[in-house]
Amino acid sequence: MDERIRKQLEFSLEIDKEKNVLRQTSLSGKGRKENDAEHAWHMAIMAYLLREYSNENIDIAKTMLMCLIHDIVEIDAGDTYAYDTERLKTQKERENAAKERIFSLLPDDQKHELIALFDEFELGQTAESRFAHAMDNIQPLLLNNSNDGMDWKEHNTSAKDVYGRHAMTKLGSEKLYEITDQIIKKHIEKGNLTE
Amino acid sequence: MDERIRKQLEFSLEIDKEKNVLRQTSLSGKGRKENDAEHAWHMAIMAYLLREYSNENIDIAKTMLMCLIHDIVEIDAGDTYAYDTERLKTQKERENAAKERIFSLLPDDQKHELIALFDEFELGQTAESRFAHAMDNIQPLLLNNSNDGMDWKEHNTSAKDVYGRHAMTKLGSEKLYEITDQIIKKHIEKGNLTE
Repeated sequence: MDERIRKQLEFSLEIDKEKNVLRQTSLSGKGRKENDAEHAWHMAIMAYLLREYSNENIDIAKTMLMCLIHDIVEIDAGDTYAYDTERLKTQKERENAAKERIFSLLPDDQKHELIALFDEFELGQTAESRFAHAMDNIQPLLLNNSNDGMDWKEHNTSAKDVYGRHAMTKLGSEKLYEITDQIIKKHIEKGNLTE
Repeated sequence: MDERIRKQLEFSLEIDKEKNVLRQTSLSGKGRKENDAEHAWHMAIMAYLLREYSNENIDIAKTMLMCLIHDIVEIDAGDTYAYDTERLKTQKERENAAKERIFSLLPDDQKHELIALFDEFELGQTAESRFAHAMDNIQPLLLNNSNDGMDWKEHNTSAKDVYGRHAMTKLGSEKLYEITDQIIKKHIEKGNLTE
């Protein structure tokens, strides 16, 4: 087996571990916690189906791939809950080390390509990354809404924190933000989010 | 919320159930059984990274989307193990009913688009579907190889059955079939596959 394909298959095997990184979102039907691979799969399909609501024109292949790989660093760094302020402080450092180790398993050209795509997502300064962030927000919102806000209740999450996070959704899609806003308001009314 | 987006979000929520459809493949590290959503995520990333080995030029966005949705019908129809000859007999009928129910949740244009893509995968007559089938085969092979063939041993799988399935891999990628062949031969030697 030549070196290039050996490295590509080694990376492919390594990312299998993302299936063991649990998030704070529960599956619909008040199910178990979701893992990162499932979340990324869900986001990529939603990106395709909802792309007409992007504020800007997007390259859909790039957006889908960005969704698929955006959490790979969590294999080493772990998931950081969006509203966990303590762990958020060290998130960047943990994720940078992971990024270097994991993407270095690939041949150099693909390493650089995927790191660039990962960084683009993190920075959120392009049309694709803004829409991918909207998916990163609306996918768990959809599940949590279907579960009567159980994830928010579990963490005593405040409406302010949720609105803070969903500011990114608005940058990606005004239309999806409208729906997000309706859903958040409903959960404030129901007492599932603290004021 | 208008009807179109309501339907798109309803479908998006429905496919969450794919995360509960278990396959016969174990995760690396002799882990738990993989589910369909994880498998599809893994295939889509591998399709992107390994696309240079496709026998024919492929539209990568289409191939990735095909990988992502190819098992959605199993939400109703369940996973059918590749070497379970009894259940394979009723697979088509179960999957057709599921296809109609699940994709009908979408607006008509997207329903028809996704059904066409699903059918294209099933038929395996285009470059994209042939490469997607190669991914559908090589992804579990990679995991099973890393686990010393434990899934084959569990089912007393024969080398003949494995070669039969991987005929599809060759149609998608001669290069990946070469590697597949090396891996299968190794497991025959080790006694992990029956002759």
